[in-house]
Amino acid sequence: MKARIHITLKKGVLDPQGKAIANALSHLGFDGVEEVRQGKYIEIDLAGSDSTQARAKLDAMCAQLLANTVIENYAVELEA
Amino acid sequence: MKARIHITLKKGVLDPQGKAIANALSHLGFDGVEEVRQGKYIEIDLAGSDSTQARAKLDAMCAQLLANTVIENYAVELEA
Repeated sequence: MKARIHITLKKGVLDPQGKAIANALSHLGFDGVEEVRQGKYIEIDLAGSDSTQARAKLDAMCAQLLANTVIENYAVELEA
Repeated sequence: MKARIHITLKKGVLDPQGKAIANALSHLGFDGVEEVRQGKYIEIDLAGSDSTQARAKLDAMCAQLLANTVIENYAVELEA
């Protein structure tokens, strides 16, 4: 079973990496860039086929290791 | 106009960051993790409403700055 996890900074948390990308894009001549936010994207292949169990496990993985829930949100998508 | 960009390592390219996550998960007691790949996720707010133009611009941004197309793939999704 394949899971896709998006980890993004919460609204209001400064994103210096996103700001750096926005600056670099403007230096390269790309206009009209209003905001850039950078997050993480993680793909996990899990053994087993119980999606309820997988979702609970992925939730625990995010809370314990993958995301810093003080400043980050995470979203888990499961593929069949 | 909001764009979501996923940047992932091409198949066959080693992903030490993904391997480190897989090891850490196994040390934390999560079993059944077969593979982990880490990529980047970037959200860009663009001025204007011409989606064809926006897509061309985002493509150029990825090729010139955001992705290393030798080892990475990118995918652009546009939101209305």
